[in-house]
Amino acid sequence: MSPPRARSRSGGRAGNQRRGGSTAIRQSPWEIVVNSDHPTTPLRPEGVEMIHDAAMRVLEEIGVDFLNEEARSILAEAGCDIAPDGPRVRMGRDFVMEMVARAPSEFDITPRNPERRVTIGGDHMVFVNVSSPPNAMDLDGGRRVGNIEDFRNFMRLTQYFNCIHLAGGYPVEPVDVHASVRHLDCLYDKLTLTDKVCHAYSLGRERVEDVMEMVRIAGGLSHEEFDAAPRMYTNINSSSPLKHDYPMLDGAMRLARRGQPVIVTPFTLSGAMAPVTLAGATVLSVAEGLAAIALLEYMAPGLPVVMGTFTSNVDMKSGAPAFGTPEYVRATQMAGQMARFYGLPLRASNACAANAPDGQAMWESANSLWACVTGGANVVYHGAGWLEGGLIASYEKFVMDCELIQQIAHYLKGVSVEEADLAFEAIREVDSSGHFFGCQHTQDRYESAFYAPFLSDWRNYEAWAEAGGVQTAERANKVWKGILAEYRPPSMDEAVREELAAFVARRKSEGGAPTDF
Amino acid sequence: MSPPRARSRSGGRAGNQRRGGSTAIRQSPWEIVVNSDHPTTPLRPEGVEMIHDAAMRVLEEIGVDFLNEEARSILAEAGCDIAPDGPRVRMGRDFVMEMVARAPSEFDITPRNPERRVTIGGDHMVFVNVSSPPNAMDLDGGRRVGNIEDFRNFMRLTQYFNCIHLAGGYPVEPVDVHASVRHLDCLYDKLTLTDKVCHAYSLGRERVEDVMEMVRIAGGLSHEEFDAAPRMYTNINSSSPLKHDYPMLDGAMRLARRGQPVIVTPFTLSGAMAPVTLAGATVLSVAEGLAAIALLEYMAPGLPVVMGTFTSNVDMKSGAPAFGTPEYVRATQMAGQMARFYGLPLRASNACAANAPDGQAMWESANSLWACVTGGANVVYHGAGWLEGGLIASYEKFVMDCELIQQIAHYLKGVSVEEADLAFEAIREVDSSGHFFGCQHTQDRYESAFYAPFLSDWRNYEAWAEAGGVQTAERANKVWKGILAEYRPPSMDEAVREELAAFVARRKSEGGAPTDF
Repeated sequence: MSPPRARSRSGGRAGNQRRGGSTAIRQSPWEIVVNSDHPTTPLRPEGVEMIHDAAMRVLEEIGVDFLNEEARSILAEAGCDIAPDGPRVRMGRDFVMEMVARAPSEFDITPRNPERRVTIGGDHMVFVNVSSPPNAMDLDGGRRVGNIEDFRNFMRLTQYFNCIHLAGGYPVEPVDVHASVRHLDCLYDKLTLTDKVCHAYSLGRERVEDVMEMVRIAGGLSHEEFDAAPRMYTNINSSSPLKHDYPMLDGAMRLARRGQPVIVTPFTLSGAMAPVTLAGATVLSVAEGLAAIALLEYMAPGLPVVMGTFTSNVDMKSGAPAFGTPEYVRATQMAGQMARFYGLPLRASNACAANAPDGQAMWESANSLWACVTGGANVVYHGAGWLEGGLIASYEKFVMDCELIQQIAHYLKGVSVEEADLAFEAIREVDSSGHFFGCQHTQDRYESAFYAPFLSDWRNYEAWAEAGGVQTAERANKVWKGILAEYRPPSMDEAVREELAAFVARRKSEGGAPTDF
Repeated sequence: MSPPRARSRSGGRAGNQRRGGSTAIRQSPWEIVVNSDHPTTPLRPEGVEMIHDAAMRVLEEIGVDFLNEEARSILAEAGCDIAPDGPRVRMGRDFVMEMVARAPSEFDITPRNPERRVTIGGDHMVFVNVSSPPNAMDLDGGRRVGNIEDFRNFMRLTQYFNCIHLAGGYPVEPVDVHASVRHLDCLYDKLTLTDKVCHAYSLGRERVEDVMEMVRIAGGLSHEEFDAAPRMYTNINSSSPLKHDYPMLDGAMRLARRGQPVIVTPFTLSGAMAPVTLAGATVLSVAEGLAAIALLEYMAPGLPVVMGTFTSNVDMKSGAPAFGTPEYVRATQMAGQMARFYGLPLRASNACAANAPDGQAMWESANSLWACVTGGANVVYHGAGWLEGGLIASYEKFVMDCELIQQIAHYLKGVSVEEADLAFEAIREVDSSGHFFGCQHTQDRYESAFYAPFLSDWRNYEAWAEAGGVQTAERANKVWKGILAEYRPPSMDEAVREELAAFVARRKSEGGAPTDF
């Protein structure tokens, strides 16, 4: 852990970041997005039934490996069929569906700042920062292995942008901090540099318990208060095909016992870890996801869970994963249909394969985001900053993605069609020889009529060229520097901050977490 | 007209461009896209009715200026209310709806190569090259006023890319050719460099008649054969608000008399030439569009027509037009709902405001293209190459847009969910310890399982950086140069080519068309 820095001390009311009062950019206010569009449904109802039935047959006839003895013993107690010598678990569809039915279709998570409460599920849509790349990149410094200062900077950007609702996983892995204590430093930074919903990696008992404890302390909560409602979450990935690893299950079960939400996201790359057909990859994804959800709902009836999808395709020539592809869009929409069939919220991602914040990056990301919109995704992971299939956290891409997310959030506000919106009298008034700039109907509405971007340059070519012909990524470079220059951390009670620091210090003195994972 | 060039002489069977046999890139085959997705419907049914009713009230109570005496006298004959001294025409909703009902919801256009026949309407989706920018731009030469060589190059790209179905308007205005004869040179080039559906600008009697005659000659058609079915089309824009200009109406009527399709596209920029509310802008767009369609259907019952939309918003600070915005997406979807209400095909556009083929250009274009998909657009104008709100035709953007269009076309093929697609036996076979690369289920399908892009770079960062770290626009630069280097014109019977050349020579000797427009 770094010593408390000046900017951390500037907390309290005065240090509270002004909403929308930024001078770096004029951004949209904090708001949970509601997606009222009818989702796109590539599967007919019988297609949904066929995928469901095949997923159930996978769980009943083939089974899934649970590489965690405790999980297996719980599932044995539940009446599942456990192989005598090992990890294979088969479960009947009646059990699975009974467990899945326990999960809420919608729930809230309340972080240390209750104004940052988010609703997950239903027609709500929240966006998460990029999570877990090993590398950071910007136009000045190029690509480098992640470090703690990059980590903090991305946390500042995560806090700054109102369109990013959750401070998810590490936006970049700070490998300059020893793995045994990394979670302590990272969570201290995350909890002091942001006041948004946090996440715990399911990477071993100590890490998970430490993070839960730190979130509890940061929220000023008793243990009972922490347990009483969702305060944070974890995301676990199955090790496709057909395997749930020990630490993921361990972490998920630890959160489940304390009523904290779990997102289950099989990483079913079609053609590699999953069948080459999108239908087959979806079958595998659903089977793996529901297997874990059934375990968690048996342990903790009514636990808030999310069905995650990470089905995309690979380049069949090289095996390289691809994102934001036509297949990715369809797979996300199909996952949305399955999630709604089960009454579960859906997590998807803003993913791309590009290596630079250029045209390809943005068409792939736009495709991914439209996949989330048309698929009805409730949680958009890797919402801002992801490049190179998740191996790079890009400063410029973070800013560019936030511009696009703001646009999509505005799009989802829908269109008003009241009598006055029809503008009949304005059309009569302006008639065929005028324009609408000056009429009262426009004057009454123009300030908020349209979405105002912070990054798009809408000037004509001459004005744009005269101002230097600055392309999008270079403009984004200026934006993130401006944001970091004016960033101020959210307020935190000094006593809470000290308790948090003391906890970190104590846990460090105890050696942190084992690193033999 | 330039003298016949060597490459024109290389026509005939040998010169016929090989489909998909290109060595420059591996592109998708020629195919009309079918969009079976349920469209996104921001308007509830009562919203559609409200916009319809307001548009009818505009036509009945306010009226539209028809700045063309012939059009007015036809509408007077039809029983419309014509102002005694001038251009205003009011028409009753019963008449309008009766006329609109005459239009087919779907029709074909057959160009000189019948294999390039396109279907307009229903669930079909066709893409048109960028049309009408005054400037061309590429990474080497920068931005310049359009010239005939740029015009020809864009025609070659239009012909090359199978995903571009129509050779629409001039991809760039060749201002180095005198305006009196420009249409002759341009159409000669267009008809010899491509074999796709052509377009006539409605810019005066001579131009329209010349283009129809040239399309007839190029198709080897008698006048009767030309008139018997759609061979080409025009697009007219109302001069919003509430005005149809002389030459546009004149051209539309000339095509209507010969059974050739007309697209009617009001340019209703919300907040400028149209109300600041999207509902109001749509009311105006529908009223203007249907006014012209009613005229054409009265003259030529059953004429194939298309309802165009160009509703977007302006930057309310500068008045600059913006495209690919949240408002543009919604307006396109709303126009789709109205077009389906009237049983008319819809034209929309792949538009953006960006000045360079960078991130902004591609998120704006992706937004526009997803607007076309979710709005159910049948004709996507400016499909490839448009920058700066239509003032620049960009070589690199053309290539980038074609990549994105191919992706969307692949996306629209949908997802197969047959028993074998569920991959149950493959999942059993691979089990929890293998991968799907090698299994038979994958081997049987991998070659065509996924869309293969020609422009995306899916390599990891190291491989990409080692190969020069070439960004998307620079890759596109190489692609268009490769395409132009290997371009060969489609075959044309030498006698037809000579007749076309003779026509052009004769019309030039007559002075071409007046330039007092």
